[in-house]
Amino acid sequence: MGLLGTSVGLGVKAAMPRVRLVGYAHRLSTRRKVRRLGVIGELPDDIGRAVENADMVILAAPIRTFEQILGRIAASLKPGCIVTDVGSTKVLPHRWAARLLPRNVHFVGSHPIAGSEQRGAEAAQEDLLDGAYCIVTVTGRTNSSAAARIKNFWRKLGCTVRVMSPAKHDRLLANISHLPHCVAAALVNANTDDDLALAGTGFIDTTRIASSPANIWLDIFLTNPAKLSGAINRSITELLKFRKAIDAGDEKKLRYLLRRAQKKRDAIAAARKQGKGNE
Amino acid sequence: MGLLGTSVGLGVKAAMPRVRLVGYAHRLSTRRKVRRLGVIGELPDDIGRAVENADMVILAAPIRTFEQILGRIAASLKPGCIVTDVGSTKVLPHRWAARLLPRNVHFVGSHPIAGSEQRGAEAAQEDLLDGAYCIVTVTGRTNSSAAARIKNFWRKLGCTVRVMSPAKHDRLLANISHLPHCVAAALVNANTDDDLALAGTGFIDTTRIASSPANIWLDIFLTNPAKLSGAINRSITELLKFRKAIDAGDEKKLRYLLRRAQKKRDAIAAARKQGKGNE
Repeated sequence: MGLLGTSVGLGVKAAMPRVRLVGYAHRLSTRRKVRRLGVIGELPDDIGRAVENADMVILAAPIRTFEQILGRIAASLKPGCIVTDVGSTKVLPHRWAARLLPRNVHFVGSHPIAGSEQRGAEAAQEDLLDGAYCIVTVTGRTNSSAAARIKNFWRKLGCTVRVMSPAKHDRLLANISHLPHCVAAALVNANTDDDLALAGTGFIDTTRIASSPANIWLDIFLTNPAKLSGAINRSITELLKFRKAIDAGDEKKLRYLLRRAQKKRDAIAAARKQGKGNE
Repeated sequence: MGLLGTSVGLGVKAAMPRVRLVGYAHRLSTRRKVRRLGVIGELPDDIGRAVENADMVILAAPIRTFEQILGRIAASLKPGCIVTDVGSTKVLPHRWAARLLPRNVHFVGSHPIAGSEQRGAEAAQEDLLDGAYCIVTVTGRTNSSAAARIKNFWRKLGCTVRVMSPAKHDRLLANISHLPHCVAAALVNANTDDDLALAGTGFIDTTRIASSPANIWLDIFLTNPAKLSGAINRSITELLKFRKAIDAGDEKKLRYLLRRAQKKRDAIAAARKQGKGNE
């Protein structure tokens, strides 16, 4: 029942008014807050009670809590129940689900790519996912009708759905999301506070994502280590190309590297103006 | 007579209406365009004629053309003339000026930290520098009354002036401006176009500066190689700290690195909200 979970709840209320919504939050204080906000109808104090009649369960907690949560809810899920999540990495959730969920319960991974600088149920918006991409992850063992229902679910909330394997998802997100965060954080850490006092808009924009909550990124980094480590290596290789050209005063090479980046970056910006891309 | 040079001209017109403005552009086509725009009163075709009566000369061309320009104007400058520039690196301009200008002409470095996504005289604005920082660079040999006049000049255009040595300027800018550009460009280059098609706002913001003109940054990188090379090394060191913690699954270290970046980045954002910082 944080920002994303509560926003999904509000979106379901608006787009699928006949759906019965049941929420759960680990902390009593969170459950009290959500009850006070009145966004979700039912909020039992027991996680087993919260899921026992569910046709669909959506995990919207830190990824590293999924293993424990799946273990705690497994016995309460009814046959045919579909479990999904909204986590930013997908290989481990699929692995835990395959090990912990009963055979007659279906797991499909989801990663709705939406967020906000704000946090918590109080910042939730019913249209947070409208216009966002949602990556749905499936393996060779995924039940295809469960996958179809999950795709349909996110589409009803306004998402553009893409389907891929958990491994492809984690590689892709390592490159375009986890690496940029790491690079931005490293760029901040490479500078003294004295120097940073004179930083301008260029620096501010380049490092904006380093201001997002450290604990969320800790969870993401620790559940996608191999792909992120590889992505960091590739970024270092590219930085070393710049350094080598700069050290050598190699104007031709440096122009090539700068122009290449400019063209590739311009192409993303142009594609987004045409309505593609989202986060 | 590009964006910055023409904006300075327009700013002078507005803030110091009694000043006689003379412009010069290397290309005939640029001089024709500027004449058509009518922003600068006089635009002789000869660079010597353009500077021969000047009390102050402002170089607003690519940094690597300064050496040649200083050589071409040196004999036409009158005694007591003050020469400054608006380049993004300062060690080389000072070195060239010390070698090429007559003893009775004074050089003071300037770096007004302002720009725009747009380019050329047609995009010039008389208030482009209003509210911007301008770093004025001086050495032990700089004439102090010339430095005072240059500081006063930028203040009249609305700048907050900081004075430092060329070496300190180039080290500082390598860290907070040139390195971010290099990091953003390397981050773009580390990714395939296929992956970039799915990039979201996080990636887009982090790499925005990689879309600025490659030829301007080529000029900057090639005139500040040692400081930039050192800054790249520091950023690689920081990236390797992340990779090491990720590879080892070292949660404590990774949390420390992420929190450190978040705190430092939040401090810059907070300082800027209080009206400090500018670019």
